[in-house]
Amino acid sequence: MARYKLILAYDGTEFLGSQRQAHARTVQGELENALKQLGWRGSTVIMAGRTDTGTHASGQVAAFDMEWTGSTSRLLHALNAKLPYDMAVRDLQETSDKFHPRFDATSRKYVYRLFCEPIRNPLREKLAWRIWPSVDAAALEKAARLFRGTHDFAAFGSPTTSKGTTQRTVTKAEWKSLPDGECQFEIQADAFLYRMVRRMVFVQAAVGLGRCSVEEIRNALNGRGKLPSGLAPAHGLTLVEVTYGIN
Amino acid sequence: MARYKLILAYDGTEFLGSQRQAHARTVQGELENALKQLGWRGSTVIMAGRTDTGTHASGQVAAFDMEWTGSTSRLLHALNAKLPYDMAVRDLQETSDKFHPRFDATSRKYVYRLFCEPIRNPLREKLAWRIWPSVDAAALEKAARLFRGTHDFAAFGSPTTSKGTTQRTVTKAEWKSLPDGECQFEIQADAFLYRMVRRMVFVQAAVGLGRCSVEEIRNALNGRGKLPSGLAPAHGLTLVEVTYGIN
Repeated sequence: MARYKLILAYDGTEFLGSQRQAHARTVQGELENALKQLGWRGSTVIMAGRTDTGTHASGQVAAFDMEWTGSTSRLLHALNAKLPYDMAVRDLQETSDKFHPRFDATSRKYVYRLFCEPIRNPLREKLAWRIWPSVDAAALEKAARLFRGTHDFAAFGSPTTSKGTTQRTVTKAEWKSLPDGECQFEIQADAFLYRMVRRMVFVQAAVGLGRCSVEEIRNALNGRGKLPSGLAPAHGLTLVEVTYGIN
Repeated sequence: MARYKLILAYDGTEFLGSQRQAHARTVQGELENALKQLGWRGSTVIMAGRTDTGTHASGQVAAFDMEWTGSTSRLLHALNAKLPYDMAVRDLQETSDKFHPRFDATSRKYVYRLFCEPIRNPLREKLAWRIWPSVDAAALEKAARLFRGTHDFAAFGSPTTSKGTTQRTVTKAEWKSLPDGECQFEIQADAFLYRMVRRMVFVQAAVGLGRCSVEEIRNALNGRGKLPSGLAPAHGLTLVEVTYGIN
């Protein structure tokens, strides 16, 4: 018996989130089904991070224990042959028996994509949020800077456990401008509150549209005032990387 | 009563092609349904080009006659409110009573996207063909050059009518290398044979993989020899533009 660590990519459009649920198509459920077809008898696959319904991943991490006599490369290809078309294992390695994808993670990185166009655009909208009127890219970047460092992010989400702290350390928060008017928000932190990235993007878009000021974000990070309520849609968000100190 | 010309975009994934069919979800069928909800009583919408099941469009052109008392901008937005999420009208103009989207078209432009990666990649594969082993980009470009100009393309497709000629004039045929190992084939011609672009991409990929020579393409364009048979998958192809001399 050995423990395996794998990197998963999926198009979240047709999944009801990452975590297993009875009677719903989820990332964990499909992965466990594929593993069972290869003789896996475990009860659960452990995932590094939870993604919402509709949210994508290029670097989700999962772990499972299995008896497998072939090479890891054969296991990877066998799994991909069993997985549905909208999900794939991108990498698979044998790892330590003690490895835990969630507890051992030292940081997570997400990318949120948006673009500004007045009319619906079916070829771009599966992986990005369409906004109109146009947002001011410089204002987005000004807002993003405020998130860097250690802050109390209570205004941007709730803790994942009832007694959890809302303090998080953001090591990267920046907007990139890409061709065709796409803006990409890249954010890395030790951990995230529930729906924190979608909330941050929504508030930054409000700043970019002139409906909220950078000063109000600064105040919210200091526990003062109130920010516009709302969430950027899940389909613009992708979990791109989970980092581990060792491993 | 006026004639309207519209530019349509759609993600072809969930359509059984562009042309209306009983009991199947098609681009034409959905467009006609949406128009009917706005009071259109015509019998048919005319489309500029036929796209295969799974093929996308950012610049398909269609025309219809309708009595509409509001502005064209209101008609555009009303149509988009009725159309399904994977299809949208990008532009709508009143046009001449004599305008015919197919007969009046002077050229069509397609883009075919491919990328080279050893493992399935669900976030990229909806709009591009994944190929492995890697193709030689310089060989693709060498092959593309042969298509430019007026040739008999009988080896690359069948005419759309039984007595039609297989001679076509290609005004643009080139590969671009994009970030993340994507290769984009852009091709413009006066008209295309049935499945001509998918066939051209398949044969060029065979050259890029060393399974066919540039010389064999040259011979085929001169009616000699035989090329490897096969088609590049439909989901890598997008109809991007239809051009009209007048309008």
